[in-house]
Amino acid sequence: MKITLLTNILLIINLFFIISGISYSETISPVPNGINYPKGLKNWRIISSSNRTDNNTQRVILGNSIAKNAINSGQTKPWPKGSILAKLVWKNKKLQKWDAAIVPGEFVHAEIMVKDSNKYKSTGGWGFARWKGLTLQPYGEDESFAQECFSCHTPAKDEDYVFTVPAALPIE
Amino acid sequence: MKITLLTNILLIINLFFIISGISYSETISPVPNGINYPKGLKNWRIISSSNRTDNNTQRVILGNSIAKNAINSGQTKPWPKGSILAKLVWKNKKLQKWDAAIVPGEFVHAEIMVKDSNKYKSTGGWGFARWKGLTLQPYGEDESFAQECFSCHTPAKDEDYVFTVPAALPIE
Repeated sequence: MKITLLTNILLIINLFFIISGISYSETISPVPNGINYPKGLKNWRIISSSNRTDNNTQRVILGNSIAKNAINSGQTKPWPKGSILAKLVWKNKKLQKWDAAIVPGEFVHAEIMVKDSNKYKSTGGWGFARWKGLTLQPYGEDESFAQECFSCHTPAKDEDYVFTVPAALPIE
Repeated sequence: MKITLLTNILLIINLFFIISGISYSETISPVPNGINYPKGLKNWRIISSSNRTDNNTQRVILGNSIAKNAINSGQTKPWPKGSILAKLVWKNKKLQKWDAAIVPGEFVHAEIMVKDSNKYKSTGGWGFARWKGLTLQPYGEDESFAQECFSCHTPAKDEDYVFTVPAALPIE
């Protein structure tokens, strides 16, 4: 059996999908604790959404394959090593054509939590990172910024420091 | 060059991704106008999110590849044939650990709009469909249900009957 042109094309597309879940951006700067931005994060599968009435923002929560598999098999206490949860956050805006609809306005930031119990022992086993704005500028002056994230997540200690409850998704 | 085991595995995974964007469910019943449920819709890429203060629901809006490509190239007036926009809708719920966070509660329904100007001439060139609950029960007693959807979308006529404004997404 020979590798045909079609096979090659499929292989390239496939590699794109595989790599997109695990590779890191070479153009976006890492945050001060060394965490890099996962390339193509915005194309990950959804886990949930949420709104914060205290700061008028809405967000979509996405996950890499490890995180999605953990949810599907109910293994999220604790989340397995390599899980990445990502939040895309926007300011709230009223939709012009429908006053009762609150939609994403200005993009605020992308945030991730990367699970590695050994590497991130001092922050609950999670590596925290945030990139601001559409151009993804790294957040934090030095490594200590992660303590700020971690302290906010402390109320969710019983849920392995994760606030997000995966949304109920339809069967298909 | 021989096809290795790895190549075969990659090929199968790849085919899964390609097929998942275009195949329809064989187990979920179609709605009365014959529209079938796109298999794996919940794994599509995100377009936006929204909240409705009139009925206390929140939703994530996803799109198939044609819709996503149309957004990326700014070709959404009108949306190209084959575009599918999908909404996953949940009732709002307060997060136990954080009162100011409104998260997805009970899953309400999945809705889609399929663009085909000839096929769906009487409803603005869009085929409308909705499936209720996590088990995706088709909505509507007969074909006329689509007029109900279409009449709600009429205020968005200037945007090709689409309320959703694609959210600003970060560069990577």
